[in-house]
Amino acid sequence: MPRIVDHDKRRRELSALAYEIITQKGIDAATYRSLAERAGCTTGMIVHYFPKRDDILLGALSHAESITRKVMDDCLEKYEGLEALRQVLYAVIPADRKLGAQWRLWISFWGRATANDVVREKQSGAYSEATSRWSDFVRKAQQAGDLSSSLNTRIEAQSVMALLDGLGVQSMIGKGALNKKQQRQLIDTYLDGLTRR
Amino acid sequence: MPRIVDHDKRRRELSALAYEIITQKGIDAATYRSLAERAGCTTGMIVHYFPKRDDILLGALSHAESITRKVMDDCLEKYEGLEALRQVLYAVIPADRKLGAQWRLWISFWGRATANDVVREKQSGAYSEATSRWSDFVRKAQQAGDLSSSLNTRIEAQSVMALLDGLGVQSMIGKGALNKKQQRQLIDTYLDGLTRR
Repeated sequence: MPRIVDHDKRRRELSALAYEIITQKGIDAATYRSLAERAGCTTGMIVHYFPKRDDILLGALSHAESITRKVMDDCLEKYEGLEALRQVLYAVIPADRKLGAQWRLWISFWGRATANDVVREKQSGAYSEATSRWSDFVRKAQQAGDLSSSLNTRIEAQSVMALLDGLGVQSMIGKGALNKKQQRQLIDTYLDGLTRR
Repeated sequence: MPRIVDHDKRRRELSALAYEIITQKGIDAATYRSLAERAGCTTGMIVHYFPKRDDILLGALSHAESITRKVMDDCLEKYEGLEALRQVLYAVIPADRKLGAQWRLWISFWGRATANDVVREKQSGAYSEATSRWSDFVRKAQQAGDLSSSLNTRIEAQSVMALLDGLGVQSMIGKGALNKKQQRQLIDTYLDGLTRR
């Protein structure tokens, strides 16, 4: 019987390892050699799954997206109305070392995306999906009556995403970076403002 | 008579050229060779002013900061109350190609800052200054009675900065990137919300 290899599964596993390397050591550390070492296979095997080095990075990005997607799904299911939006924001801000490492990955990819069409194209797709997902949270709060139904759902979703991304940047590179409490305060102030409109 | 060279002036000129190279061709294009070519001098002369390659990048960053600083000073002087905050936001968003190129520079530097202590230290200082400058705009709007004096000036300044940075990211790397009209709409919606608190 031929050995059955689940290629998609293997690619996802390697992507998760690439994500680990990048969040621990930075984007430049994710090479064919380091990934092969961590996976315990040959670099030739890595090349098979990731023909170009950018593919390794894009794999890591996909893994980061899948983590965030799960967090968002959980919050959307678990919490009601505006509380779902608040909790998902609390859950994704760079409030601890692990989330900070994830933000370093996002921010490095933005930098690469500005100079690399393949990375930008990929991130661009991620943004479309994100806009749609954040819109779900705004809509949920509107449907619960926590936010006015007259608010433009998409614009408010884009605005929340902008606030979140900017907060991530400030927290990661600002002096006396915003701590968890300050990050939450910024979010609470913002959401409080939203409810008054 | 000895030839008098104004070293600070020369360094600023070279920084402006490094800024030009980066906004036109990306951060990786700013090398000793490319800068020497553009300045019409030897690479040795560039090394004299920028001993490490990071120093070239930091020079370009300083130049970008000086451009933004001037825009902010002008808006603070020219406009009253909340209008000053609106106009400065309109003036710095990536609304056209030239401003987009400047945002590409900021975003690439954030990426580098997450992996490089020297760049992060420099950017961190820039963030402290920026927080103080954006606070001036919030305070001005509060003093004019356009925004409630009960708002925490610093938190609102950090929130505006976060929104702006996130808007820059979305505009530069999102699919169907936000155009100038959509960027302004996001800002107007945000400021409108602020006035109601």
